[in-house]
Amino acid sequence: MSDSLKKAALDYHAFPKPGKLGVELTTPAETQEDLSLAYSPGVAEPVREIAKDPENAFKYTAKGNLVAVITDGSAILGLGNLGPLASKPVMEGKSLLFKRFAGIDSVDVEVNAENPQAFIDTVINIADTYGGINLEDIKAPECFEIERVLIDRCSVPIFHDDQHGTAIVTVAGLLNALEIQGKTIEDAKVVCLGAGAAANACCNLMISAGAKRENITMLDSKGVIYKGREGLNQYKEEFANDTDARTLDDAIEGADAFLGVSGPNLLSVDQLNKMAAKPVVFACSNPDPEIKPELANEARDDLIMATGRSDYPNQVNNVLCFPFLFRGTLDVRATAINEEMKLAAVKAIKDLAKEDVPAEVTAAYGGAELSFGSDYILPKPTDPRLLGAVAGAVAQAAIDSGVARLPYPSNYPLNSVEDC
Amino acid sequence: MSDSLKKAALDYHAFPKPGKLGVELTTPAETQEDLSLAYSPGVAEPVREIAKDPENAFKYTAKGNLVAVITDGSAILGLGNLGPLASKPVMEGKSLLFKRFAGIDSVDVEVNAENPQAFIDTVINIADTYGGINLEDIKAPECFEIERVLIDRCSVPIFHDDQHGTAIVTVAGLLNALEIQGKTIEDAKVVCLGAGAAANACCNLMISAGAKRENITMLDSKGVIYKGREGLNQYKEEFANDTDARTLDDAIEGADAFLGVSGPNLLSVDQLNKMAAKPVVFACSNPDPEIKPELANEARDDLIMATGRSDYPNQVNNVLCFPFLFRGTLDVRATAINEEMKLAAVKAIKDLAKEDVPAEVTAAYGGAELSFGSDYILPKPTDPRLLGAVAGAVAQAAIDSGVARLPYPSNYPLNSVEDC
Repeated sequence: MSDSLKKAALDYHAFPKPGKLGVELTTPAETQEDLSLAYSPGVAEPVREIAKDPENAFKYTAKGNLVAVITDGSAILGLGNLGPLASKPVMEGKSLLFKRFAGIDSVDVEVNAENPQAFIDTVINIADTYGGINLEDIKAPECFEIERVLIDRCSVPIFHDDQHGTAIVTVAGLLNALEIQGKTIEDAKVVCLGAGAAANACCNLMISAGAKRENITMLDSKGVIYKGREGLNQYKEEFANDTDARTLDDAIEGADAFLGVSGPNLLSVDQLNKMAAKPVVFACSNPDPEIKPELANEARDDLIMATGRSDYPNQVNNVLCFPFLFRGTLDVRATAINEEMKLAAVKAIKDLAKEDVPAEVTAAYGGAELSFGSDYILPKPTDPRLLGAVAGAVAQAAIDSGVARLPYPSNYPLNSVEDC
Repeated sequence: MSDSLKKAALDYHAFPKPGKLGVELTTPAETQEDLSLAYSPGVAEPVREIAKDPENAFKYTAKGNLVAVITDGSAILGLGNLGPLASKPVMEGKSLLFKRFAGIDSVDVEVNAENPQAFIDTVINIADTYGGINLEDIKAPECFEIERVLIDRCSVPIFHDDQHGTAIVTVAGLLNALEIQGKTIEDAKVVCLGAGAAANACCNLMISAGAKRENITMLDSKGVIYKGREGLNQYKEEFANDTDARTLDDAIEGADAFLGVSGPNLLSVDQLNKMAAKPVVFACSNPDPEIKPELANEARDDLIMATGRSDYPNQVNNVLCFPFLFRGTLDVRATAINEEMKLAAVKAIKDLAKEDVPAEVTAAYGGAELSFGSDYILPKPTDPRLLGAVAGAVAQAAIDSGVARLPYPSNYPLNSVEDC
């Protein structure tokens, strides 16, 4: 980051008030009469109603539109384990995005846990406060077990965005890129550089979307994850193929797609040149991708490339998914965010990129032409159609797959977006 | 509650959106550039600054103006143990009052804890998220140990309002009532009917304010708590005096002040008539006091009476204290809410009742005359001077007693009240 960007970022967080979020009242609270309804004695009435039937919490409290962003601070952005308190600006930022994009009231909770079990116990104990929980910046492999247990033990939907949000947007973009290149996910040979939370989820969702496990080669910092390699944890073991490839040089030979969720400059031009004709490169290490787009595009003109950055075409940005995914989930009071809902989000995002882009979106990108093609495989985050398209598809998938507690999306939250 | 009030209370909680609180953005979040400061990549900068120095969390996050209202739902209002979820409307109501009266951003957390230790562990693990924690509706005697451990283990101020907020307002009113009756706290003979959280805190704070322990007779449901009575827990034991009194009839004889924090209609007219000349009766059981004001005033015309109700004079209402107490605490980043700060709040509230009341306050009470006297011993909750008076006094007491981390109150939060 440049010094001026650093200063701008600090100023942004310091003014006009410290932080980015506040609490607002949604009911009148001026007069003594208002207060006698908001608090004692009136408040006893919704209390009794909820004691009678817990579902009434959705009718009389903010729960139904409230998502907690919860972390242990163990893997903050690309910065590592800086502890829970230092992660607070990120969590508040995530809450800001929930509100900005989908009208969801979101609060951050930083958990200072001695170990994963303490984190799990804490989240279980507070979970019912919220309508849903977005886990954030928890390091792998602990995040997998944490998420599994929480899904099992909590009655509210649990979603680890670093895994599944990343996977949904990545797979949506990948499917479009492969289509443009005249390839299919079923036949594509994929190399995944990185074996952390995002890599695991991306590869699993690719398989849900049709990819063949044996066509995916995953690499960690020690090289290719292959059947028989010693010391693999269970999450890497899932992707251990029977292969002779041991290095990225070996694996990249003839690959149709490269997915980088690792670190800066780990894919060389030589390696890029070994890929099949019409390759797809997702270099998602942020802010410095696995290969610089300038270098990659200079080396090959048959390439479709995506990064995590907003200053290049084809940004793989989680914000394309998580606000709208939760919107759809909350709107039908789904008890979980299942594979069907994730795939519905993939399809909605993927399909939206093929539609004509509204003038307002084009204008915000300096009037650049945004039409489905190698420089536009994913919608822009500020595209206002994402809300309806993704939330609607996710809500319908929740209904169809039997996890919705409402038979149709409740109108209230979608309306409320107007004034967020 | 009448049926129409019940309906009004439910409607108030259901519309225009479920609940009473939402989240608002305090920074611009429209453009791609805004978002690049609010989230990745800009957000990395405040993260690094907080990792360097945790105090920077007050500069770059909402922590410094954020209070969590936390409960286990074990003693909801007068309704008992209905569980954490059913308590949510009360906790949201408390958060609403924090915002309404002192511009404090407040969020509720309902903890579903199997036992007090699990509750304690959970709160410790999430405490750093907030600038302060208001414990609410936790039953006695567990609440005493819970509060003690949390104060010991958390780096943010912890305050159990049902104990200390009640005590501060009660003692402020009691001191004024005694003064009007020509008595002093040092010499007053006090009967406290009730031995729960509020009773314990009120009696302790009375003693801090000058009352003599041997002049206070406390009663629980079994009668007078006396030295040698079997089965007393340590919190009741503190108030076990060497006395022959065994019943309220015995204890009330010649008492100067009666404090009721027990249940409806437990003080009879006969008992009231046994009190000393010019007695003070605080009948705080809510909504039905220990003796009806009509009955009491008919029986004695030398009485000063207070209740928990807004429809009689002299309402003992916690909202006179907790928003402003926390405001002062946050404004100087105090590490605790100590006895000095509580006594400063007592004095500020007590003294404010002696000042001329602004016309806007009088107008809101139908133009009733509000001047220091037997029907006006405490300020009205909507008195706008409470903020400056109580918060200022508490902040100064924090500075003087060495628990403030700022040398003077930060202006930001006081300014922010303008737009809340």
